[in-house]
Amino acid sequence: MQLSIADAIDLVVRALGRAGMRPHAARIVADHLVDANLCGHEFSSLPRVLAIADELRKKPPPGEIRVVREDRCSAVIDGGDNVAYVASLTAIDKALEICRKNGVAVVGANNTWFSGRLAYYVERAARQGFVAMHTTNTTARVAPYGGIDRVLGTNPFAIAFPSEDDPLVIDIGTSSTTWGDVALARTKGEALPAGVAVDVHGRPTVDPAAALEGAFLPWGGQRGSGLAVAVQLLGILAGSAAVIDDVSNYGLFFLVIDPDILMPASEYKARVSGLRRTIAVNRPMAETSHVRVPGDGSLQRRKQGLAAGVVNLDERVYQRIVELCST
Amino acid sequence: MQLSIADAIDLVVRALGRAGMRPHAARIVADHLVDANLCGHEFSSLPRVLAIADELRKKPPPGEIRVVREDRCSAVIDGGDNVAYVASLTAIDKALEICRKNGVAVVGANNTWFSGRLAYYVERAARQGFVAMHTTNTTARVAPYGGIDRVLGTNPFAIAFPSEDDPLVIDIGTSSTTWGDVALARTKGEALPAGVAVDVHGRPTVDPAAALEGAFLPWGGQRGSGLAVAVQLLGILAGSAAVIDDVSNYGLFFLVIDPDILMPASEYKARVSGLRRTIAVNRPMAETSHVRVPGDGSLQRRKQGLAAGVVNLDERVYQRIVELCST
Repeated sequence: MQLSIADAIDLVVRALGRAGMRPHAARIVADHLVDANLCGHEFSSLPRVLAIADELRKKPPPGEIRVVREDRCSAVIDGGDNVAYVASLTAIDKALEICRKNGVAVVGANNTWFSGRLAYYVERAARQGFVAMHTTNTTARVAPYGGIDRVLGTNPFAIAFPSEDDPLVIDIGTSSTTWGDVALARTKGEALPAGVAVDVHGRPTVDPAAALEGAFLPWGGQRGSGLAVAVQLLGILAGSAAVIDDVSNYGLFFLVIDPDILMPASEYKARVSGLRRTIAVNRPMAETSHVRVPGDGSLQRRKQGLAAGVVNLDERVYQRIVELCST
Repeated sequence: MQLSIADAIDLVVRALGRAGMRPHAARIVADHLVDANLCGHEFSSLPRVLAIADELRKKPPPGEIRVVREDRCSAVIDGGDNVAYVASLTAIDKALEICRKNGVAVVGANNTWFSGRLAYYVERAARQGFVAMHTTNTTARVAPYGGIDRVLGTNPFAIAFPSEDDPLVIDIGTSSTTWGDVALARTKGEALPAGVAVDVHGRPTVDPAAALEGAFLPWGGQRGSGLAVAVQLLGILAGSAAVIDDVSNYGLFFLVIDPDILMPASEYKARVSGLRRTIAVNRPMAETSHVRVPGDGSLQRRKQGLAAGVVNLDERVYQRIVELCST
């Protein structure tokens, strides 16, 4: 089914408001989730309303989001146990403010939970002319390479670069699957792909429920697992626990760089655009029709979605969000 | 065959000196290559002397390595067309100097070529208590995911974290093979593994010569290719060309962070050590004997090598380096 963008935002704001979220925060989350939908990322989109509302009901009301420390090129944000969709926006905007003054910013945020599409925040910075990197560690669900006990989060890594047109945005998970995908498979009664999870005894499983009790496997073998450990350690640097046992106190790490500190920003943007063109005209392999520039699929889908003015969503998800609004 | 560590360093210094490298620079390279050997990384070790000497003979004498720009939290280094083993040491030490003063440092270095084990530089920073990230883009040899034309370098990415004992060091390449491995296979007359390269027409190949004329494939599919693009763009930010066609003007990016800007450094180190222990005691999968903490294999081999006091190397490589000393 379809909703207008305005109706979809209104629906999310009402549902989260009923779950106790303040209107300003609910609007931030709604903008993010509807944008994820327009970009074609179904599970990081409207179904998240249900998961967020579930958590809100389990938690005491959040505190304020506060900058608890600020130096010349860095800041620390206490998320006040607010959802990270909101704390991340405070964090990236603080990083941008610092970076405009001093050319580099490192910002850590903690005492917050969940995380949206990391691309959303780094793209925001790149549209203002900055290079931005962002990582988040999350609830322990992933075993390190060669192991079977969950230690790491699904630990996404994102980085974006300004160009002469749209930013070039790279956003990758370091787990072979996501909590969202596994939860969705459980809801739909579907099996997982082979090789993405083990049960609590360490045996390979395609049963979503068993995977949620056991562990997901890292993406990319030893190298991917190394990257997942790096994201875990950057999250710890931002203030998370070494291993996150529940849905709280994730560690969000942000780095923002003004290209001008290393070379003229206009020249940098020109070179980024040059690399994008070089990738786009790369001769495709026999089995592919064209070579994708990272992030450009999302950007194109968003443009089409904005032009159409509508959000596509699953009828069942819609019904469940509507139910939330009336509870 | 074996050499004492002192003899190995002396051999490298003499060979590079005969190829025109100044003694101070040759000693820096020798220390790096012998350390790579001790850590068990054969091809990034003594065989590199031959490749470096080859390049030196093709190039005019290098200039000085100069800090051409320095701001509060950043610097730009002109490598003077010196080999990156030397320029990287200047760059990481400048980053450490800046970071000690201001908590964060972003340093770019360009007009330099080749790169050693990136782990060497980030470990150096982590041993002094800092978190350090380092990337290098290199001569175009790798096609972006789905393509067959070489655009990206083999583009390694490294990051290290201080702990209560040894640093935790992650160093990954973003190509499914390395120039060194392919060149070594060609020298030995061996085939490449399947799936790591295409020939100049884009057909899969296991012939090293065809791979060197064609393109290597990225590691890790679309996600790995995204990471390779990110490293390319950080190299460009450090001052490289968008695509590097020859062995010059690589872009080296360094980020150094004092953990103290985000949390007490002693607490951070304790949490890093905690995560390391948690990973090390992870129950192994049936087919593995234990779970590896990233970088710990190299650290252990180095300790054993230092205790033994000897370097193991291929007799043929030794003979060729000795020949260099007498030409």
